[in-house]
This record gives sequence, structure tokens and C-alpha cells, in this order.
Amino acid sequence: MKAFKLVQWGQPGQYVEIPEPRPGPNDVLIRMRGAGLCRSDLDMMDSPPGSAPYASSVDPNYVLGHENAGYVAELGANVTDLGVGEAVVVHHLPHCGNCAACTGGHENYCQAFKRGAIATGRGCGGDGGLAEFLVVPRTEVISVGFDVDPADYAPLTDAAVTAYHAVRTAVQRLKPGTSAALIGIGGLGMYGVQFVKLLSSAQIYAVDTSEDRLKVAREVGADSTILFQEKDEGKAAKDQLMELTQSRGVDVIVDFVGSAATLQLAARISRRQGRIVLVGMHPGAGSTLEVGWGRIATSCEFAISLGSTRQDLREVCELAKQGKLRIDVQKFGFDQIPQAYEELRAGTLTGRAVVVFPNPKTGADASLQGPVYLHSKL
Amino acid sequence: MKAFKLVQWGQPGQYVEIPEPRPGPNDVLIRMRGAGLCRSDLDMMDSPPGSAPYASSVDPNYVLGHENAGYVAELGANVTDLGVGEAVVVHHLPHCGNCAACTGGHENYCQAFKRGAIATGRGCGGDGGLAEFLVVPRTEVISVGFDVDPADYAPLTDAAVTAYHAVRTAVQRLKPGTSAALIGIGGLGMYGVQFVKLLSSAQIYAVDTSEDRLKVAREVGADSTILFQEKDEGKAAKDQLMELTQSRGVDVIVDFVGSAATLQLAARISRRQGRIVLVGMHPGAGSTLEVGWGRIATSCEFAISLGSTRQDLREVCELAKQGKLRIDVQKFGFDQIPQAYEELRAGTLTGRAVVVFPNPKTGADASLQGPVYLHSKL
Amino acid sequence: MKAFKLVQWGQPGQYVEIPEPRPGPNDVLIRMRGAGLCRSDLDMMDSPPGSAPYASSVDPNYVLGHENAGYVAELGANVTDLGVGEAVVVHHLPHCGNCAACTGGHENYCQAFKRGAIATGRGCGGDGGLAEFLVVPRTEVISVGFDVDPADYAPLTDAAVTAYHAVRTAVQRLKPGTSAALIGIGGLGMYGVQFVKLLSSAQIYAVDTSEDRLKVAREVGADSTILFQEKDEGKAAKDQLMELTQSRGVDVIVDFVGSAATLQLAARISRRQGRIVLVGMHPGAGSTLEVGWGRIATSCEFAISLGSTRQDLREVCELAKQGKLRIDVQKFGFDQIPQAYEELRAGTLTGRAVVVFPNPKTGADASLQGPVYLHSKL
Amino acid sequence: MKAFKLVQWGQPGQYVEIPEPRPGPNDVLIRMRGAGLCRSDLDMMDSPPGSAPYASSVDPNYVLGHENAGYVAELGANVTDLGVGEAVVVHHLPHCGNCAACTGGHENYCQAFKRGAIATGRGCGGDGGLAEFLVVPRTEVISVGFDVDPADYAPLTDAAVTAYHAVRTAVQRLKPGTSAALIGIGGLGMYGVQFVKLLSSAQIYAVDTSEDRLKVAREVGADSTILFQEKDEGKAAKDQLMELTQSRGVDVIVDFVGSAATLQLAARISRRQGRIVLVGMHPGAGSTLEVGWGRIATSCEFAISLGSTRQDLREVCELAKQGKLRIDVQKFGFDQIPQAYEELRAGTLTGRAVVVFPNPKTGADASLQGPVYLHSKL
Repeated sequence: MKAFKLVQWGQPGQYVEIPEPRPGPNDVLIRMRGAGLCRSDLDMMDSPPGSAPYASSVDPNYVLGHENAGYVAELGANVTDLGVGEAVVVHHLPHCGNCAACTGGHENYCQAFKRGAIATGRGCGGDGGLAEFLVVPRTEVISVGFDVDPADYAPLTDAAVTAYHAVRTAVQRLKPGTSAALIGIGGLGMYGVQFVKLLSSAQIYAVDTSEDRLKVAREVGADSTILFQEKDEGKAAKDQLMELTQSRGVDVIVDFVGSAATLQLAARISRRQGRIVLVGMHPGAGSTLEVGWGRIATSCEFAISLGSTRQDLREVCELAKQGKLRIDVQKFGFDQIPQAYEELRAGTLTGRAVVVFPNPKTGADASLQGPVYLHSKL
Repeated sequence: MKAFKLVQWGQPGQYVEIPEPRPGPNDVLIRMRGAGLCRSDLDMMDSPPGSAPYASSVDPNYVLGHENAGYVAELGANVTDLGVGEAVVVHHLPHCGNCAACTGGHENYCQAFKRGAIATGRGCGGDGGLAEFLVVPRTEVISVGFDVDPADYAPLTDAAVTAYHAVRTAVQRLKPGTSAALIGIGGLGMYGVQFVKLLSSAQIYAVDTSEDRLKVAREVGADSTILFQEKDEGKAAKDQLMELTQSRGVDVIVDFVGSAATLQLAARISRRQGRIVLVGMHPGAGSTLEVGWGRIATSCEFAISLGSTRQDLREVCELAKQGKLRIDVQKFGFDQIPQAYEELRAGTLTGRAVVVFPNPKTGADASLQGPVYLHSKL
Repeated sequence: MKAFKLVQWGQPGQYVEIPEPRPGPNDVLIRMRGAGLCRSDLDMMDSPPGSAPYASSVDPNYVLGHENAGYVAELGANVTDLGVGEAVVVHHLPHCGNCAACTGGHENYCQAFKRGAIATGRGCGGDGGLAEFLVVPRTEVISVGFDVDPADYAPLTDAAVTAYHAVRTAVQRLKPGTSAALIGIGGLGMYGVQFVKLLSSAQIYAVDTSEDRLKVAREVGADSTILFQEKDEGKAAKDQLMELTQSRGVDVIVDFVGSAATLQLAARISRRQGRIVLVGMHPGAGSTLEVGWGRIATSCEFAISLGSTRQDLREVCELAKQGKLRIDVQKFGFDQIPQAYEELRAGTLTGRAVVVFPNPKTGADASLQGPVYLHSKL
Repeated sequence: MKAFKLVQWGQPGQYVEIPEPRPGPNDVLIRMRGAGLCRSDLDMMDSPPGSAPYASSVDPNYVLGHENAGYVAELGANVTDLGVGEAVVVHHLPHCGNCAACTGGHENYCQAFKRGAIATGRGCGGDGGLAEFLVVPRTEVISVGFDVDPADYAPLTDAAVTAYHAVRTAVQRLKPGTSAALIGIGGLGMYGVQFVKLLSSAQIYAVDTSEDRLKVAREVGADSTILFQEKDEGKAAKDQLMELTQSRGVDVIVDFVGSAATLQLAARISRRQGRIVLVGMHPGAGSTLEVGWGRIATSCEFAISLGSTRQDLREVCELAKQGKLRIDVQKFGFDQIPQAYEELRAGTLTGRAVVVFPNPKTGADASLQGPVYLHSKL
């Protein structure tokens, strides 16, 4: 079969002919339907040999693609609870299933897998989904049923579910009368706004440097949008948020950017008994925050959210199946991958780039005439 | 001032002239703006002298009305955190503030007040809100601010907030992919549907014997409505709910009726690790449920929800202030109280009956031309 | 190897020569060290062919023993996180690992395994631990480390961990000043007392019909013990508990018996906002409870607790490793199994019967001279 | 009556004759039995006129003493749920009872009282307990019953309850197999150790610079004690804690010191999904911590704990009543107050200094012969 591989560090990916993979006894063979492209793919292709973090810790020569959705094509001998033709998504993080983190339902903190600077796994060191077929262990597959076309589900497996996990750790405090500020309305933040909206009645404040992204935030449910201006280091944004909250501060702040300036903003608008959740990992030295008496609101918590669980992914897929989620994707055919990465690099995409494979059920050809902008909802 | 009093057990209420009450040092004098009428008022007026529960435990000769909202008219000497003219609602349950239940944030289980068969307090043994002025302790008042007309808030203080409390005890388990069944879409249940909708993304199933009420349920957010038929004792309803949930059962069931038949339905549609919440107290012998192995789903919890807290009322008012709540009221002038009770008794109302007093801010006369059907929202 | 098998329904188990089992790629081969004997083993041996629940749903001819602990003897090819010689215990319930219950951390409610009337699995339909070697999937094994002799851990895998799960679902409400009543101080209840003691500062009331068992309850931490008398159907016990709680009732009640009489007692001593947890499944018609207004304390919850999770077992083993748990076992050699079952049937045991296999590390022979009564602690 | 007053800033307190206070309708008149002395009393007496924080924000000329326990001597007209002669303790923080923090059960974050740099209230701006009688609002009094001598309860109302609140916010994660490090085993920390011990089965690590205090930590339940050495800035302590936890880090860390060095230690020993709770407010510039990716363990939370609630105090008193708490006090008579403050200043006390008033029930004279060192337990 044809696959799109990272063959060598520091070089663009290439179309390569490889043998079809075969499932082991506990595996699932997936016929791919949608594969999301991610900025970290570009980082990998741009990495000079030996450079950190990718080229220093992972061997090249693997199929790219870590946001994967498709149909069950074949089941390993021990897998009896899925059916051929069932639509599935793939959780993007490997986990052992047996350590204390895993048995406690926190497989994102699996002790058997080191996930420091980078996430290793499918599409990064191991074969990912930019090929006709993909093999994954049964344990990393979530079913979305027989009646769903999984093409649009690919971006849920990383961008959406990471935002969901961060929101879920704070949503219990979002009682009526409270508020949430989401900083950075990009690929993750636009889902963050939706999840707060779907799971609470809190006032939602969206913060970004781009008016375009703030427009999206309003469309998906933000009650107010606040422009973060680099020139005043967020001072006007802070003033605006304190005014919106009658000087009380914001109860839950999720920072999808993670720069020194956004964390500073988070501290300044924090509310007593509130919670600041850091998700973004901004490159550079500044992405830390000084906490202590007088630095953040008293008894406001600070926490870092990393990754997600399979249960998170299941719940996100439920929201999508019920049509409650807006998923912005721009579709490309399998032969348009280089062009898609180019657009991703140029910043001209208007949604997540998803490579769409032919639908085995309808026989429809996926050689798309051109990019399609899709709203699953709205 | 003129007040509408229960003068003697077994007799209709009467308009009576009484002196204006004066606030003590920790009290608030409220100029009434909206007073909700409740079926229990009729029960009181219908009680023969000495009969249980009201006439056997409470002395007559008090002003009726336990759903009260208005404006601060005067403050006791020790009350410094409210302002004259501020709109307020009155929590309908008295509490001591100092017992273990109260300091634990559960004033609805205050150990100093016995609330067995009946709720004693304002409008039931003590003077209620069917008069120009009402005095209440500061501790039982929740502010809704200076910019709100509290006329429509009266029904929130009992019907809505009781439903809110019941839903709040279960909402944590309503993750995406779960479902909630609300049985009985009357004065409480129609709020129950709204609260589940506002606080979760669960599938909402509304169950009632009336197609009219099911229509309301759909309008306020039910995903599916199920007709409960007396003739088959709910068997068809059960079948329908099991089909809707692919035989898994329902995660959260709130029974606002509390009859033997509705509790039986709740048990039959219960799901493993689910929760049945009983709110309604159906008259008659049958309102109990047999639980144990095989009777309800294993590890499904059963609980009774009683009353509400001031914090609940604050949160419900927040939802109302944000325009997220539909409040169905039918308005009457102060001189139309007997007529309003008549309609309540006849079952011809299309919303909660609320006696509206003149707006002191606009000077508008509340001698309404006739009943007004109001949607605060939708 | 020699194994003790149920060869046919309705007959005692027999020593039989069988081939040593081999681990599959995801399995662990365990050299047995301790195997607990259980009353349900007797039930199986006593079942006439075709009778419910065992003989009607499971094929005979399997090795008995479902409380298993031992040493890793060999690892399947895919198992890399355990070492040969590591001490392990086996969680007694099978689970799929992938359904919504399992990914949510509730494998005791695994949707892929039906566990209604009986628990099927190892030692009941499939080969259990009464043999030199046992093969189990890696996912059902919990490590207790290299420095532990697992002989005494066998009873933790069923009796103790089931009690732990029941207590854990209620322990959050056991704040200082609250109380817990544990009904039935047998194999599970004596652990229940210990877990409440170890995880809270609640007052502990132990209830039983036997003064001997109440003595054990006091030894392991009960603050008061209450004799349940059959002749007055627990009336004196109820009076005593209400007096001990100054008529407030008990906050958490765990019923390890589950008879009509014990459930009735639970209802009568329940406290507002309390919780009744049913664990025992008493044979006979009566083991249900009528709940509803006036039947149990208002807002007291009722729930059934079934089984346990691997995380529960991990936490129970931690307590044992720290020497905080008293484990009463009476040890038998492998050739004394019939005698051990006889004592179990006769009720003459003074602790859980555990068949002890030779210690491969010390070479010590397990042909015990006679039963040994052991306290791991006290 | 005679009272010990701060008459002017910058001067020692003085014995002064003042009129007996009278209770208002919602107040309680308390005959004092035990009054704890606190280092902040010395700070007040040492403050030059106009200096921050005390002398710049509060008027002098008030009775000192903010850790108060005694007997009800007289009740205000509206107080009906206490009896004359009942033993009571006084919660040391004022609260309004009606703001969103208070109705939510978080009166330590009462929005009506600013508590920034200093705690104002009884014994600091208003009359405290160093006098025969004290008047407090009913809402700030917790009963400990008629059978208790409250003399030893005074230190519970501030030192113990503040530690309890901090521990309570983290105790849910202290499952068997986890660990807690308590940094600083002084007046608060020695209670912190006891509360972790009483409410969980976690391993307890106590950290301090003094071997004497570490000895106390072991006596009250620490499993291991770790000497913090100033000379290596805690490096050896960090190494020791990482070894004790097999390099996993500590789950819950409560820092009762709050210096740059102790916070740094907390960060370095933090564990994934753990929680750092800052309680101490070390004078000087350094008491902040840099958090962010790589600075603390991923998803480890950081939070500040401030004050306590009445419910906390009730629970702490329950533990004391049950004899589970060791309370170290050194008793002084009312005429020995200057001597007691001198010892406090000199650091020669071996427990909290408590001024003991005569017992009205036994008539015993409190003119103690000399300091008495008391263990309520151990």
C-alpha cells in the first residue's frame, strides 16, 4: 500500500510503497478514513538529524499521522467486542493499562511511558495513519458505532480531547454565576469554549490576539471576547476582564498558550478559590509563573493539564455524534498531503487539515476537487 | 396595610387590615413585588380545624404566601450589606445557621427546624408575602441586584429551587453519553428539564401523563418525551425508555411525582451506577419502592431530595438574570387573589399564579386588566 | 502437575494430574503460594447437575480456587513490566478493559461480562489456583513487590477487597463526628471495620449475632459493639444504636448480611444525608427494603456495592504491606484441602482457610504440621 | 472586671479594670476558661504607632486574646439553642453569613471582610478573651457540650483548625499507598501530622530544621522525619524524600513555613497529580514559587490555604472530645500573663501558652503554682 513517510530527519515526507500491516491477536486493523495533520509533523520534518526533541530520541522512517479515524477492517483473534465495518477513532497516547496511574483511570500519566518534552508513539517513531491501513492495539480504539462516518472525527483524537481534559478538571466549579476565561482560541481553544458551554452555565470569556479567532469564539459560544494586545502585555485585557467580573476575577482560567504574558494575565485575573489550568507549552524561556501570597488570588489553584484519557475521547465522540460540536476541517485527498502541509505551514487553512480516504461503504472517491470547509454543526 | 390572611382553618383566606410590620435589627423590610400562589395554600384553607398536617401543628391567623420577591424598603440597624431599593428574593425555608447541618452548608436539613410532614414558616404559621410589606431575617434574603424587576422571580424561590437542588445532587454523573429521565413535568419538572439542559450535555427524557406538559418539556429542552399511560401502569413508557437507551437504562432519574407507579418505572429503567432521586410526595399509601438485589440496577443509588439551600437559590437567580430560564407565570393583581386561587384549584392556569404588586420604581399600577402569560425566555 | 478439581457437579473435588499451563503472549504464569478457600466452593461441589446457579450456567471439570497469590514464574512475550520472582496477587473478576465501565475505572461493572446471580471466572468454570501453577492475563495481576511473601495475601483478593470497595464508596462522608455501623462481622465485615478505622475518624459500631465475632470487631477497632438478637428482630440493637448517636442515627451503614431483618435495622437507624450500602446477598425472599418518604431518613441514600476494582486491590495490598491490616488465616498444606473444606463446612475455622504452597525462595516445605492461626498484625 | 489590654501601640499589655460586657439579642456572654497566647500578640505590642500592618489599620485600646474557650454565662434574647453552663469555643474569624462565599460554606473567604495582610477581629482591634467575660455573636460559637472542660480547647480555635483546613483540602487524594510531607512542625504542623494520621492511611513525612520538633512529629504519628538543613538549602532533605518514595515524589505537600527554600523543596519533591498547599507566610521577599512545565511535577496542583470554617472547628473539637488529639499546652494563671508572653518571646515554652481562668463548676482556683505541661493524649 502507499504511505506518507518521514524517511529521514530534516526532509519532507515522501510517498512510499510499504506492505499492508497485519493485526496481532489483540490488535485492530483499521481502514483509514480521516487523518489529521498537525504542526508537530512539520516540526519533525524540519528537525536536523540528532536535534532535540524528536531527532534525538526517535528513529526516523515511519508513517506520519497521529490523529486517526477509520473503519475496522480486520480483528485480531482475541478481539471479540468490535465488528468489521464499525467506525472507530484512535486515542493518540500509548498506555500500559496496568500501572497505578492506569488502574486509577489516569492513563495520560501512565508510568510506563515517559512523556516529557515530546509525545512518542503512533506517527512519531511508530507508524501512523497516513496510509490506507493502520494497526493499533484494541485498547487504544474507541468505537463510534456503525452509523457514523468517522472522516470528521480525526481532529477530535488530539486537539479536541486535550482541551476537553483540561476543561473537565475544572468544570465542577463552574456553577451558575461563575465565569471561565479561555486564553488562546486556536485549534484547542475553540473546542475549549464549546466544552465549557456544553458542560456548564458559566459566563465564557475568550481571549486572543486575533479578531478572526475571537469571531470564531463568539460563534461557538463565548459570551464576551477580549483582545489581547502584545503592545501593552495584556494590560487592557486584564482591565476588561476585571470590569466584566465586577472586580471579582475569573473562576476558571484555561491557558492554551502558556507564554509568560498569558500566564501573567491568568494570575492577575484569578479569583479566590479559582483555578488556573495551564495547557499550552509556549516555546521560550518565559512560560512560568510566580505563585505565592499576593501573586495569585488566595486559594486559587494552579495546575498543569497534560493529554487525555480514553474516557475523555469517548465523551468527546458522544458530543460529536449528537451533533453538538462544531468541527472545522479542511479536507484534502491522499495525493494532496504535501499541499496540505504547505498550507498548514503558510497559515492559510481555515480549519484542521484532514486527509480523507475513500469511503469503503459508499465507494465514493476521496480525490477531492479542492479543500472543503465543513461545519458539522451551526 | 391590606393583607390576605388565613383567618381560620377550613375557611377561604380574607382581605384584612393589619399594621405595617417593622424590621428588627437583623431584619429586612421588603416592599412586595411578586408573590407566588401554591397548591399547599389551598390545602391549608381546606383543612378542617385540628386536622393533620397543617391545622394540627400550626396556629391560624397569618398572612398567606411563601414564594416572595420584592424590593428592600428598610434595613435593620445591623444590616449593612444591602441597599434600599435593591431587588431581593426570599428563601422559603427557615434555618438556624449554627447547627452541624447549617455550618456544613446544608441548611435544608437544619436540625433546629422539624420539617417532617409539612414545611412550617413564612406563609404557613407565620406571616407570608400576600401584603404590601414583609419582614424577614437578613439571613433568608438573596439579592438579585438593582437592575432587576423581581416580579417574575417569585416562583424561583420554591418550585424552581427545589427542582434545582434535586438535579444538582446528580448532575456530576451526567457526562456526555449519559441520560436523565425526569418524571412529572409540572411546576417543578419543567424547571428540572431546564436545569439538566443548562448544566450538562446528557440526553433528556421527559415523562408525563399529559401531552400538553410533554410539549412544554420539548420546548424547554427535552430530547425525547414519553407518555406515561395509567392503563398499562407505565409499561409502554418503560419499553420506550429502554429502547431509547439501547437497553442500558437511564443514568439519572428524578421522580417529581412519587407515586407507586412512577417509582416502579424508575426502578425498571435504572442503570448500573445510576441514581434515582425522589422529590414528589404523592398522597396515598403507595409511594414507596422495594430496593435490593434484582429490584433496581446494581449499584444504582436511591435518594430523597428535600428542599434547597440559599446557595441553590442564588444560582437559580443567576440563571434567571442571564435570561437562560423560562419562567411561566400568570399574573394577577392584589385584588384578584380569590380569583387566582380559584383558577389554581380548577387547573385552568397556564403557568405559576403570581400576585404582582405595583412597581415602586416606575409607579406602574399592578391592577392588571387580566391574567398575562409570560415567557421570560424562548 | 497435581491440581484439585471439581470434576463433576454434586461431587467433592478431587486431586487430578494435569499438564502445566503455558502463558500466552499477554499472560503471566504464576507459581502458586497461597490459595484461599471460599464457601462458594462448597456450594459448587454441592450443586446437583443442572441446578442453578452454578451447574446451570457453567461446565464442570475445572481447577477450584479463586483467591490466588503467588510468584511470577514466567512472562508472556508482551509482558515487560513484571519480573520473574515478583510476588503478585490476582484480581478475582474478569474485565474487558475497553467498555465504558472499564475505561471509566469501574471494571467491576464491565459491560462485557454478565455477573448476575454468580461470578463466573477463575475457579468457577475456568481453572483456578488449587494447583502448582496458574495462568492469568497480565491485566488481572497486581504486583506486591519482590520483598513480600504473598502467602497471606490470598484472602485480600476477594473478601477484603469487596469490603474495601463498599467502604470506599462511603468514606468521604465519614468526617470527624460522624459514625459508621457495620452489620455482620464475618469474613468481609471484619475487614470493613478495619478499613473504616484506617480511612477515617468516625465512630465505629459493629453489629452481629455472635459475641465471638463482636470480640474480633473490638480487637480490630470497633468503638462499640451491638448484639443483634434474632428473637426481637433487632429491636434492642436499634434502640442501642439510637442511644449511642443521641437519636441522630448513623451516617454510614454497610450491611454485609443483607437479610430482611438487617436491612430493616439499617433503615431504622439511618440518618439524614446518610448512606446505606448493601453488600450481602442473603439467601431467601426477604432481602429487600422498602424506601420512600418516612421509610428511611430523608435524603439518606441507598446503594448496592458489587465487587471491586484492580485499584481497590492495589490499595488493600498497600495497607497489608505496611502492616496495618490484620489478616486471620488458618493454613493448610496442599494435601490437606479436603480437610480444610471439611472444617470450613463445619464452621470450626478461626480464620480464612488458605492452602499454602512451598516457598520457592526459601525451599521451606509447606506440609504443615497442622492448622496455624496467624495474625499479620496485632 | 479585670482585663489584659493593649492600651497603646508599641507598649506591653496592661491589666485594666473595665465594665463587664453585656450580650446583644443575638450574642453569647462567655465566662472565659482558656485563652491562648499567640506570637501575633507580641507583634502587636511591638508595633510602633502607625506601623504596618497592625498599627496602621487598627485602633489600639482593646483586650488581647483571639484563641478563646469558656462557658456560656448568659444568652441574648434571640439565642435559644445553647444553655447556660455549656462549654463553647469561639471561631476566630468574623464572617457575614450572607455573601456567596458564606452561603457556599466558605466563610473563610467571606467577601464582606478584607483579610489581606492581617486578620482583624477579636483580640486585634476588638475586645478579645483575656478577661473574665467575652461577648461574641452566636454565629461564631461552636458548642462542645456540657461534659467538657474547655480549658484545653483554646489552641484548637486557631493553630489546630488552620492546619485542619489545609489538610482537609488535600486528604481525598491520600489513598493507601500515597504519601504526605508536612514541612514545619511548629504550632500548626504538629496538628497537621495528627490530622493526616487521623483521616488517612498515607505515609507521613515530617520535615523541620529542629530535631526536637521532629521528635514530636514522630510521637504524634510521622512515619519518617527529615531534617531540613539550612546549609545545603534542603538538598539532602530532597534526596531523602525522593529515596523514601522510590523517586516517585510526594503526593501531598503542606508547607507551614512558606519560605523560598521550603517552597523550592516542595516543588522538587512534588509528584504527578499531586498537590502543594501553602499555609505559612514567611516574612521576606522570597516566599514565592516558579511554576510551569518542568518546574513542578506535571499536573501537580499548587494552592494557598487560608483560615478555616466553623465546620472545620466543629470537626476538630470532635476529635479532641474523642481523645484522639494531642494538645500541648503550658498553663498560666490570669495574673501570670506578662510572664507567659515573656516565655513565648524567649522561646522557652514547651507547648501553646494558655491562660486558664477558674473553673466555675468546681470552684477550683486557677492561680496555678506554676506552668503545667499537659498532654490531652499519649
